[in-house]
Amino acid sequence: MKRITVLGATGSIGLRTLEIVSSFPEEFSVAGLAARGSTVERLADLARKYAPEAIALLDADAVDRLAALLPRPRPELLAGADGVVALTRDVPADIVVSALVGGAGLLPTMAAIRAGRAVALANKETLVMAGQLMTAAARRHDVPLLPVDSEHSAVFQCLCGHNRRDVHRILLTASGGPFRELPKERFATITVDDALRHPTWKMGAKITIDSATLMNKGLEVIEARWLFDVAPEQVQIVVHPQSVVHSMVEYIDGSVIAQLGVADMGVPILYALTYPERRPTPAPRLDLARVGQLTFFEPDPARFPCLRLARHALEQGGAAPVVLNAANEIAVAAFLDRRITFTDIPELIEGALADVPAGELESIEACVAIDAETRRRVERAVAARAGRKSL
Amino acid sequence: MKRITVLGATGSIGLRTLEIVSSFPEEFSVAGLAARGSTVERLADLARKYAPEAIALLDADAVDRLAALLPRPRPELLAGADGVVALTRDVPADIVVSALVGGAGLLPTMAAIRAGRAVALANKETLVMAGQLMTAAARRHDVPLLPVDSEHSAVFQCLCGHNRRDVHRILLTASGGPFRELPKERFATITVDDALRHPTWKMGAKITIDSATLMNKGLEVIEARWLFDVAPEQVQIVVHPQSVVHSMVEYIDGSVIAQLGVADMGVPILYALTYPERRPTPAPRLDLARVGQLTFFEPDPARFPCLRLARHALEQGGAAPVVLNAANEIAVAAFLDRRITFTDIPELIEGALADVPAGELESIEACVAIDAETRRRVERAVAARAGRKSL
Repeated sequence: MKRITVLGATGSIGLRTLEIVSSFPEEFSVAGLAARGSTVERLADLARKYAPEAIALLDADAVDRLAALLPRPRPELLAGADGVVALTRDVPADIVVSALVGGAGLLPTMAAIRAGRAVALANKETLVMAGQLMTAAARRHDVPLLPVDSEHSAVFQCLCGHNRRDVHRILLTASGGPFRELPKERFATITVDDALRHPTWKMGAKITIDSATLMNKGLEVIEARWLFDVAPEQVQIVVHPQSVVHSMVEYIDGSVIAQLGVADMGVPILYALTYPERRPTPAPRLDLARVGQLTFFEPDPARFPCLRLARHALEQGGAAPVVLNAANEIAVAAFLDRRITFTDIPELIEGALADVPAGELESIEACVAIDAETRRRVERAVAARAGRKSL
Repeated sequence: MKRITVLGATGSIGLRTLEIVSSFPEEFSVAGLAARGSTVERLADLARKYAPEAIALLDADAVDRLAALLPRPRPELLAGADGVVALTRDVPADIVVSALVGGAGLLPTMAAIRAGRAVALANKETLVMAGQLMTAAARRHDVPLLPVDSEHSAVFQCLCGHNRRDVHRILLTASGGPFRELPKERFATITVDDALRHPTWKMGAKITIDSATLMNKGLEVIEARWLFDVAPEQVQIVVHPQSVVHSMVEYIDGSVIAQLGVADMGVPILYALTYPERRPTPAPRLDLARVGQLTFFEPDPARFPCLRLARHALEQGGAAPVVLNAANEIAVAAFLDRRITFTDIPELIEGALADVPAGELESIEACVAIDAETRRRVERAVAARAGRKSL
């Protein structure tokens, strides 16, 4: 029986993980649940269903509301960012599913690694911010980082059984998002509703906007660089609108290994939980003859500047990816709040990247400080833009 | 330094293998060469270039002509089917590349296994004829059977590092051949030249005709069943005209692993020679954005009855696959000789399969006897048809 802690339990990945736990009651039980705090009713339902030992709420103010809703005997209740870290560190678990959105996942994921718990990583932002520190910690504590992102799970499966030194490059596929064919001059008028309409994957709001700007793919390039220990230029992107090929690895002899499947996050989540084994699932099967056609394109850097910004940050290294990620999170939140336009997102990020603190990232604490400082900076830039424009 | 013996040295796979040997002179040398005998000049050239220890000619009558052409000191010369077996058995080699066309490869391939030599298997007919006996012998002698067929090399790579018990099914891709879209009523008028025009692969005449009838894919289903020890119904076919996806394995969790590449036999040959390692090659690289589109279809059993015949023979077991293969070899040769029509091929095979000797195949000798008897039977049927029609 594997004990699972789920960080981001009320999000898209968290709920899917818990569904899988329900489907394999002999294999998995829930150790702890953590969430932001906006959905305490749902969290209380999950607590009744999965009987976790402890629950942590990132938003400390919501703790009392949750406490009133919880069943007796009540699971231990923890509050705030420290509470999420304490849950991850102190509640015994075999696997921590890291599925909080954004930089909020960094400290608890590091806590899981330091406590020697296997991490099923759905939160790419943590690797973008602290890839070097986090992968070094995982090696030091001999902790596996199991990818949950469909692309990285695909790469992980395509590397399985092959020699790492034979890898020529990693090819991440990108659906291209809802604006794959939209002319450049119409990008400024994209609305939030337009951007939330992803063609192939049903996901949370932040990642859906990232998919529309292709920043999601940029973040994934950085994630792949760290997760698979390859040079930045060895990670490349091909646009593949059907999202059937989830990613590929090209070897030095020209052979390309790909992982394919229906667009269902249940498959990579289950694989991360059962690795190195697999379990049969009732998930719908890929029927290529029915799909009929798979298409592939070069990504268009002119319409999707976030790709260039992400690669630039990766190559610059140091604090640049932290700045990239923080600026993106603030810009996307501002776009979702209808305070800025779609094309403001890359402009704000580019502005933030013009002023990156020098030097290497020596610690997670430095990372957190630069993250916080960038958020303040970009918030000010958002306010300035929002003041200038009427949206 | 690996010593390589090449059976079928003057054929398409044999020549490509020798090109690879030339490209890696520090890694490979040639131990022995065997060929049918129709191309003694080419074989003499190869002997000068690769200095094998011995050469075997299947066609004993051609030995004197070859002897006159060989450089001094002359390699040992062996003649006839026994000569090819002796070469394989007695000349020390690390790998035997089994690339003779058709049933002629059976005895020398078995000799390689019994001598404990790794076999790089390009000759699918041997596994069709004697899959159970041959794979049992390979296990007994602890000899790897390394697939060279692009499809089976793909499957082999897709299985690498994954649990065999997690395999749900093997999906062999088929280009569909030159008549993928030809209406059924025009099949009777297909000429030899039409059938030799394969859309994606440049290969020998026999396999090109087999690709046009899709018998090649039927034989590959049987080959895969034995090579990868799966149930017949676990091997399925999908038509994929671009020949970019070389085959796939679907696992029990719905995850599909595929191997892709340009259509170049050099890649699977090199992989078989260097397995479990890979070597960098100057071979052209797959550029999916340039390919643009991959398509997939169900195979059409009405226009390609050979698929049904092959599956029927596999399910019937015993001597049926031997009969299938022998009948196909004779029918294809007769078609290439313009003695029968394209649609006579499946009819002759179906006729032969109506009369399969009962019982299990107890020995390779039984296999050889049934093969010879079927060839005589189908030759008579060809003569009868050729007499009735004017082609």
